[in-house]
Amino acid sequence: MFRVFAVSNFVTEPARYPSTASFYTAIRIVRRDSVCFCIFPMEEYKLDPATEGRPITCKAAVARKPGEPLVIEDIVVAPPKPHEVRVRIICTSLCHSDITFRNMQDPPGYFPRILGHEAAGVVESVGKDVTEVTKGDMVIPFFLPDCGQCNDCKSSKSNRCTNFPFKVSPSMPRDGTTRFIDQNGEIIHHFMFISSFSEYTVVDIVNVIKMDSEIPPNRACLLSCGVSTGVGAAWRTADVEPGSTVAIFGLGSVGLAVAEGARLCGATRIIGVDVKPEKFEIGKKFGVTDFVHAGECEKKPVSQVIIDITGGGADYCFECVGRASLVHEAYASCRKGWGKTIVLGVDKPGARLSLSSYEVLHDGKSLMGSLFGGLKPKSHVPILLKRYMDKELQLDKFVTHELKFKDINKAFDLLSTGQCLRCVIWMDK
Amino acid sequence: MFRVFAVSNFVTEPARYPSTASFYTAIRIVRRDSVCFCIFPMEEYKLDPATEGRPITCKAAVARKPGEPLVIEDIVVAPPKPHEVRVRIICTSLCHSDITFRNMQDPPGYFPRILGHEAAGVVESVGKDVTEVTKGDMVIPFFLPDCGQCNDCKSSKSNRCTNFPFKVSPSMPRDGTTRFIDQNGEIIHHFMFISSFSEYTVVDIVNVIKMDSEIPPNRACLLSCGVSTGVGAAWRTADVEPGSTVAIFGLGSVGLAVAEGARLCGATRIIGVDVKPEKFEIGKKFGVTDFVHAGECEKKPVSQVIIDITGGGADYCFECVGRASLVHEAYASCRKGWGKTIVLGVDKPGARLSLSSYEVLHDGKSLMGSLFGGLKPKSHVPILLKRYMDKELQLDKFVTHELKFKDINKAFDLLSTGQCLRCVIWMDK
Repeated sequence: MFRVFAVSNFVTEPARYPSTASFYTAIRIVRRDSVCFCIFPMEEYKLDPATEGRPITCKAAVARKPGEPLVIEDIVVAPPKPHEVRVRIICTSLCHSDITFRNMQDPPGYFPRILGHEAAGVVESVGKDVTEVTKGDMVIPFFLPDCGQCNDCKSSKSNRCTNFPFKVSPSMPRDGTTRFIDQNGEIIHHFMFISSFSEYTVVDIVNVIKMDSEIPPNRACLLSCGVSTGVGAAWRTADVEPGSTVAIFGLGSVGLAVAEGARLCGATRIIGVDVKPEKFEIGKKFGVTDFVHAGECEKKPVSQVIIDITGGGADYCFECVGRASLVHEAYASCRKGWGKTIVLGVDKPGARLSLSSYEVLHDGKSLMGSLFGGLKPKSHVPILLKRYMDKELQLDKFVTHELKFKDINKAFDLLSTGQCLRCVIWMDK
Repeated sequence: MFRVFAVSNFVTEPARYPSTASFYTAIRIVRRDSVCFCIFPMEEYKLDPATEGRPITCKAAVARKPGEPLVIEDIVVAPPKPHEVRVRIICTSLCHSDITFRNMQDPPGYFPRILGHEAAGVVESVGKDVTEVTKGDMVIPFFLPDCGQCNDCKSSKSNRCTNFPFKVSPSMPRDGTTRFIDQNGEIIHHFMFISSFSEYTVVDIVNVIKMDSEIPPNRACLLSCGVSTGVGAAWRTADVEPGSTVAIFGLGSVGLAVAEGARLCGATRIIGVDVKPEKFEIGKKFGVTDFVHAGECEKKPVSQVIIDITGGGADYCFECVGRASLVHEAYASCRKGWGKTIVLGVDKPGARLSLSSYEVLHDGKSLMGSLFGGLKPKSHVPILLKRYMDKELQLDKFVTHELKFKDINKAFDLLSTGQCLRCVIWMDK
């Protein structure tokens, strides 16, 4: 039995991509279009039976000081407690939140900490009372808990678990302790209930879903956060209607994922707004049909440009930058009568949105936030995985770089400087 | 053939109510419970055929100076132009906006002006190209145009007509001129496309609906603005679900109409918030189940009280006071995950709403404005009228006072000082 993985940029940018063949003893590489497929044996994910129930010593990239590169070091990962799962991470990808919290001096910034919250892996062992997954299962962890039992998890309207409220916690969700210690016996903090920049991590069962083992981990990991957030915001939060017009403020990965989601929902006009004109070329690959260069609107507000080119405003506006002042611009860009403004970007703590009271009352628009795209991890992400496997949801184009684990700080540099969309890190090297 | 009208407070507060018998040559008065029914002949609404196509001289209550009592004087009402209807007003009721604009010095305040925008009447004559109503039809005018032709009017999502955008205009919507002059030949301004404080007025066909002649005009007039706004906000804007919890900030007529709408939608808990504790007793009649006295929360914010008593927040919060700072409190009172905050109140020009960027992103709530309750006058108000006639929508309890036209300034006093909910003015005396 073999696995088949699509590998981005293998041919076009070989220098960026580590040798999958050497990673996985691939037996054949077949080129189709510009994507390479690596076929390698299933036994790759065989796990050492001797580790179950015992601490594991492995490599992790530890954030030791604010703003400084991560330090790859040996750490010890405790066995899972009841309702927990220990996961061997196969792939992890870098999200802007990892950079934000690497640089954050004060709580919710904590040090030392293992960052990382987009990942795919294989279950190494499970704690007591875990029945949902078992050793050897391929899984995706999620920062947003989904207990399946509370009023929120049972409701189709909410993705905010009441029993396990989301927070950028430095520890496990049930008992507030950690599962990591360093070589000196000091605790290392968790991050967003995942901490995937480690060869092994422990996550609660409410933070993990099982996935089909045929799904490539270097694509599945994207659905842990950024891409799901964007696609979900269009699909679940905004409920974009076929034939509608969408404006997206900020064409980073999340904004492009909104475009991808809007395209899947049947939007016919997708307007990208960014200060970097080169984003339009990238945006086109994701279905962006029009571009507004926010820095060059001839003294018109961006909202007026959008109102002019759409004949009244976009049906849906998405703020993906994380700037409260832009929310007002997005709101103003929405069509009166039914326009929806969806906030995805994370601004600084204490930032406030300001809207005209008159406009809110008179214009018939709505404003909503979208955490994890309004998706319920356990019920909606499997749908996205299926749409990927059905070649509808195009995950491949989000991955601009794939790196070895030892080069993880390079991924931080690439994302910090806007040189990549998603950089996948293979943990096995 | 006879009409049967329910008359509030006829028995309990006879001094407030003019003699319907003398108004309409009523032939019989039947008491049922605490409501009186006046039965009087249909020929009451017979119109003088000589007026058609000619100016009509009639009485109107004219706002001549900001903040001063209206002056009842003879005015001349021009015949309707194409697409217009001249209406003999039978009943009009007073809304807070009439007081606001009577007191407003600068535009959109204009003087002299005929205020009034809640009414029911009978068509005296129609202009060219009017086919929707004809002479003798009972009608209700609406400040919100509904042309039925534009994208908004055709869409189920919007009630903001594109062809005739709502504005607090001093003139007719198509040509920007007026149909009123005073005895000196000076023009008198219109108000909200209605100007119902006149025995006769002219409205555009986009601002009027025909109603069944069996519906009492002293109840139908309530659906022109305030009651429709509140009921619609619960029904159309919020789409209140059965079994849900609602919090209403401000238990004036509009807030109580939200309660009435929420009750009709099947809300099981309706929390009223007001600074006047006596409002709770009034609220109970409209389905309010709990009361939060905003002035006495033992140093807790109102939102925390609501979160405590509901175990997490109300499913829907309605701001009916018109204070931007209260919108934030209403937003904070909403349940995370799916809470909706609906803004109905009109704050001062330039007022701004301020919300925490973090809360908007993380809490899964939405904020929306509700103009005229999200109702499309021509399609939704007939449903409300039917629900009234089916004894589901309880309009009677909103009418606390009924007055003669000559006493219209008393209605302003009653509403200004919070002594009434809706005061209906019969124009015929």
